[in-house]
Amino acid sequence: MTTGHVFIAASLDGYIARPDGGLDWLMKQDVDGEDHGYKAFMDSVDGLIMGRATFETVLTFDEWSYDKEVIVMSRSLGPENIPGTLKSKVRLSSQSPAEVMKSLDKEGWRRAYVDGGELVQSFLRDGLIADIILTRIPILLGSGRALFGKISEDIDLVHDETVSYPSGLVTSKYSVSGPRG
Amino acid sequence: MTTGHVFIAASLDGYIARPDGGLDWLMKQDVDGEDHGYKAFMDSVDGLIMGRATFETVLTFDEWSYDKEVIVMSRSLGPENIPGTLKSKVRLSSQSPAEVMKSLDKEGWRRAYVDGGELVQSFLRDGLIADIILTRIPILLGSGRALFGKISEDIDLVHDETVSYPSGLVTSKYSVSGPRG
Repeated sequence: MTTGHVFIAASLDGYIARPDGGLDWLMKQDVDGEDHGYKAFMDSVDGLIMGRATFETVLTFDEWSYDKEVIVMSRSLGPENIPGTLKSKVRLSSQSPAEVMKSLDKEGWRRAYVDGGELVQSFLRDGLIADIILTRIPILLGSGRALFGKISEDIDLVHDETVSYPSGLVTSKYSVSGPRG
Repeated sequence: MTTGHVFIAASLDGYIARPDGGLDWLMKQDVDGEDHGYKAFMDSVDGLIMGRATFETVLTFDEWSYDKEVIVMSRSLGPENIPGTLKSKVRLSSQSPAEVMKSLDKEGWRRAYVDGGELVQSFLRDGLIADIILTRIPILLGSGRALFGKISEDIDLVHDETVSYPSGLVTSKYSVSGPRG
């Protein structure tokens, strides 16, 4: 089946955004000239799956930066919420994580980029994430939208690789070895 | 003044212990033969400051493993709570973080190991932590005692060094550059 892959940045205390979704703390990092593996990662996936909150944050950016198809998981959004210029690039799905992965598998997707905190959490809980590339930003925020959430049992990880950058960002790749037992 | 230094392990989702204080997830890591810098760190400090919860966890271990003096920050414990064999090694303090650091400074302490989640949080909030050596354990727990907590403003960090080990543990050192503004 299609496998889920995470590529995300978080503060050292585990937040991917401020309580209001703000990313100023991320944007202020001086990462000029650094490639944290994003391009290679994007080249490796067939498309993206993101939650409503992430989609709405991305819509506030100046440009739509994704070349590949984006599935937005939402039960509340309708076609009227997709800007006209994005109709060919963005699709809504109200399926469960497992259902959407089955559907994408039938369409030929091998690897999906799963983006956004809540979505990563639900895909992790459902055993649909194969690996996580996590970039730690050298800052403590104290509050915000957490990358990780509650799970019913431990999830053991296998550390594949860590690279640190002059900016102070540290990127680690972990494979998910599945729930214990 | 005496500076505070943190050397601590946390799960990838930021917990230093299970909700009941359990450390089984940490103990099960296969780290045979690896030195994650603990000895060099311990050699560099004049003593330890820990909170009550950490002290009570440490008391459950088979051996008292600290050669250096330990200050236990607690307003509820009394001398009767210190086992007889530890009376020369453990001291109680009901001072505030800043007060205890001032007292230790007068005693000639230059560097104090600040241990335990709640204590690290309060010393961080009060600007008393100079650096953090954080070892990430490759596991998600989903709940537990959090390493980091609420802070009133961002704390910017400077990444000094990251080392990863065959076991999958990844140790990063960060200097605290102080609250913004």
